[in-house]
This record gives sequence, C-alpha cells and structure tokens, in this order.
Amino acid sequence: MCPPRFIESIQSPEISRRNLLKFGLGAAVAAVAAPLTAEAATATRASFRNVADLTHLLGTQFPLFPGAAPFQITPVVFHERDGYYGSILNYWEHSGTHMDAPVHFAPNGLFVDQIPVSSLVVPAVVINISERAARDPDTVVTPDDIRAWERRYGRIPNNAAVLMASGWGARAHSVELFRNTDSSGVMHFPGFGKDAIDFLLTERSISGIGVDTLSLDHGPSTTFAVHYTLLPTNRWGLENLANLESIPPSGATLVVGAPKIAAGSGGPSRVFALW
Amino acid sequence: MCPPRFIESIQSPEISRRNLLKFGLGAAVAAVAAPLTAEAATATRASFRNVADLTHLLGTQFPLFPGAAPFQITPVVFHERDGYYGSILNYWEHSGTHMDAPVHFAPNGLFVDQIPVSSLVVPAVVINISERAARDPDTVVTPDDIRAWERRYGRIPNNAAVLMASGWGARAHSVELFRNTDSSGVMHFPGFGKDAIDFLLTERSISGIGVDTLSLDHGPSTTFAVHYTLLPTNRWGLENLANLESIPPSGATLVVGAPKIAAGSGGPSRVFALW
Ligand SMILES: [Zn+2]
Ligand SMILES: [Zn+2]
Repeated sequence: MCPPRFIESIQSPEISRRNLLKFGLGAAVAAVAAPLTAEAATATRASFRNVADLTHLLGTQFPLFPGAAPFQITPVVFHERDGYYGSILNYWEHSGTHMDAPVHFAPNGLFVDQIPVSSLVVPAVVINISERAARDPDTVVTPDDIRAWERRYGRIPNNAAVLMASGWGARAHSVELFRNTDSSGVMHFPGFGKDAIDFLLTERSISGIGVDTLSLDHGPSTTFAVHYTLLPTNRWGLENLANLESIPPSGATLVVGAPKIAAGSGGPSRVFALW
Repeated sequence: MCPPRFIESIQSPEISRRNLLKFGLGAAVAAVAAPLTAEAATATRASFRNVADLTHLLGTQFPLFPGAAPFQITPVVFHERDGYYGSILNYWEHSGTHMDAPVHFAPNGLFVDQIPVSSLVVPAVVINISERAARDPDTVVTPDDIRAWERRYGRIPNNAAVLMASGWGARAHSVELFRNTDSSGVMHFPGFGKDAIDFLLTERSISGIGVDTLSLDHGPSTTFAVHYTLLPTNRWGLENLANLESIPPSGATLVVGAPKIAAGSGGPSRVFALW
C-alpha cells in the first residue's frame, strides 16, 4: 500500500526565539501546501469502519504527575450576563492524554508544532501487557514482547506508533489507583523498558510510542531512560492514552490531534484510532 | 456506504455542577466502549491517500477576536536547570483554529467534551466563495451556494461538516488583514448567512459548520445570528480553519481533534482532512 500524501498547513510566522534558533530543523519538516488539481475534486471517500476515542476526559480531577501545577478552567463570560459562555484555561502542558514532543527531553528536539503531519497519522501497533501488569505493576514492555507481537501480526510497519496497553486506563478515575504510590513515595505502574526502545530505534522505523499510564518510563524510574533515549531522536511520546484495549492490535490508523502551539513541549491531544 | 462504528472512551467522573445539571443530555450521547471480539484483530487498515492539516499555528501572534485575553505560554522548567523543558499555558478557549461547542451560545447546549465522536469524524463539504470574497469581504454563504455545490457534487451527505473556503486563511499571519477593520471599527470578513444555516438545519442533516475566518457570522455582524441559530441545535462550529483550498470540495473526511475538556465551551482543535 502506498503511504498517504501529507499536506501541512502554511505556517504563519511566529516570533519565538527558540523557533528561530532552530530554524534549520523547522524548515526541514515544513512542507508547503501544494494547490490541488482537478484530480482532488473527484476524491474517493476515506474508508474505515470503526472510530475509537483514545482520549481521557481532562478536568480538575485528572491524575497529574506529582508536582505538576493544577489544571484550571475559569469561566469569564456567562450566558445570563454576556449572552454567551466561555473560559480561560490555565494548565501545565503535560496534563491529561497528552503529547511529549521531542523538545520536552531534548534541547534540540522538535517543538510540538514542528512535528510533521506524516508522524501524526500513522499505523498503530498495540502491545498488550495487561495480564502481566495485573500481577506486577512495575513491568515493562520488552524486546520479547515486540517479537511476540511480530510473530503474530508481522513486522512492525514503517512509521508506526507502538502503544502499550497495560489495563491502566481503567484506573484513571482515581489519582490513587493511577499513580499507585507505595508507603515510601515510589509510584508503581507499567511503561516501556529501555531495551525495547533501543530495539525499536535501531531495528525498526517508528514515529513514536504511547502508554496508558502517567509516563513512558515505568513508575519507579528515577532516570527517565526511555524519555532520554527516545525523544532526542525526534520521535514523540503519548501518555495517559485511554481505551487501548478497544482497538485491534494491528491494522488501525492512529490520528494524533496534538496541539499546534508555537514553542510547545507537547500538550493535551485528542487521539483517535480508525480501522 | 455504511457509517463507521464509533467507540467513545469511558468517561472518568468529573465534578462539575454544569455537567451534573445536564446529566440527561450527557447520558444520551455517552456510549460505552464495547469490548471487541476477535473480528477486530483482523482489521483492514483504514484506507486514504491524502492527509491535510487544516490547523493554523497558535501562538502569541495569532489574531484573536477583539477583546479576547492574550494567548500566553510560560516556560517553567528548563533543560539546563531541570533536565527537561515545559510550559504553563494560559489562554481564552476561543483562540486559534478552534471549536465553538454548542454551550458557547446555548445555556443547555453540549460542552465540548460531550460532543459525540460520531460528530467529530464526518464527511467534509467545502463551499468555496473566495472569488466573491475577494471582491466583497462581507459576503456570506447563501442557500444558492449550497444548491450550486449540490448540483455539482450531489446531496450533502448526512452528518456532514459544511465548510466555507473564502481565501481568508492566507491572511492569518496578519492581525490587520485577518480582522480587516475599517475606520469606524467594523470588521469585514466573510461568514455564513443565517438563511444558509436555516436551510442546512431544516432541509439537510449536518454535524457542524466551519469557516476560515474569525467568526461563523461575517465581520459586520452585531447579532451573531448564525451562532444563535446553529449552536442551540447542538451542532458545533469551527473557526479559523486553515488550508481549506487544499482539500477536495467533496469526498474528504474531516477529523476534528477537539479538546476533551470538562465543561469546556470549545477550544483549540487539531483538524485534519483525509481522502
Ligand atoms: Zn509528558
Ligand atoms: Zn469561537
């Protein structure tokens, strides 16, 4: 199957010292929207039979990584007084179901707005470790898990997003269950292992990874080895994904509605799977 | 063609007086994620050949509706000091390429998180009025424009998003050009006419509308008739769309990555077209 053609929107120039500093990189990924010919007017409708929402509801109760500033939504106009309703939002970028852009852990990495669209609409590979995670909350995705997936479904497609389904999404209604902190303050939830990332980066070609827990690294991590290994290669990470058990292990397309915010390090994202 | 099956993610309970008040409505649209059977594991990959990004870059320079609070992004952790980088965001919900949820202009309308996924992945109908808009910036989409589109492409599909392409997206790099304010302070840009909305609501079945300008209503509007007619029917609006000239007038699928924020009246959205 041919890969789709990707059309970036034309960027309005944003004044940002960091974006300017990285102009070289930004220019490399910024494609220009080409005017379409009559061919496009006769498009066949995109074809898929299922759409799943992989996004948790984000509000003041959603579990944050410890130490993060609280999520705030403050209504400032009101139907009764103003004839319409709306709020000011105030939050730490890494809240809810969200993107870690490469720059989050890499000084020269892409900002969230610089991630090319071709890395946001990609094949989804779902590696389900929920049985093991139910017994051992510190468990991680290993190269063996990836090889077992490949024996069943074939080689990981180029540009895939590799997603860990650990069963943790069902705990997101509770800060206690989601963080799973022990009496010495250490969190316990699954993540990717560094070995698996090394394998994916050297032996396969991926766009990013995703987890249904608070962090790409598992709960007890103090080194954040997965973040520091993956993100400097300009791959992205998604955290706090929902509903990963509801999509097929192979064959879905992930659509990552990451925020297109100038100089963002990531941010709340609407994520769908289509198949 | 069969409509796709839609799987909502399971909502974590969010404490919100307004959500509680509207529990009736919320319950009506909240589907429960059904566990998939083996059938799903053998999914055929979603098929489409093109992906277009319909989202403008959002930053401190993006044109806002007059009077809106400024968009702010404030870095709070830094690579040099903290080993990673990230920011706090602070903004008015109706900034950048964004969703107007029904509640924005309707006290009993759906919040942005309550819009069903089946209204966010929908057929795109693009009505191009850019030639007229170049001569008359106050022009609006009329029932005649819709009928002309239908003569060429067939009846508007059920659940479609009807999008106005006016050429205004190319002006978004400049607050002056985008708002196009005259010497008496009146803005001049295209929008939908109320007649077109009446036609779409009574004669067709749509999920929402979108514009490449600052408002669903055209610039000189003082009554916001389109907002007040459309949104109370629980249809949504998208404003400040980019790149609408790059997608086919008929046959694309719109994927609206609206924020899933509890009690939100809308918000910055990542919007793609697939075909
Ligand atoms: Zn993060
Ligand atoms: Zn708005």
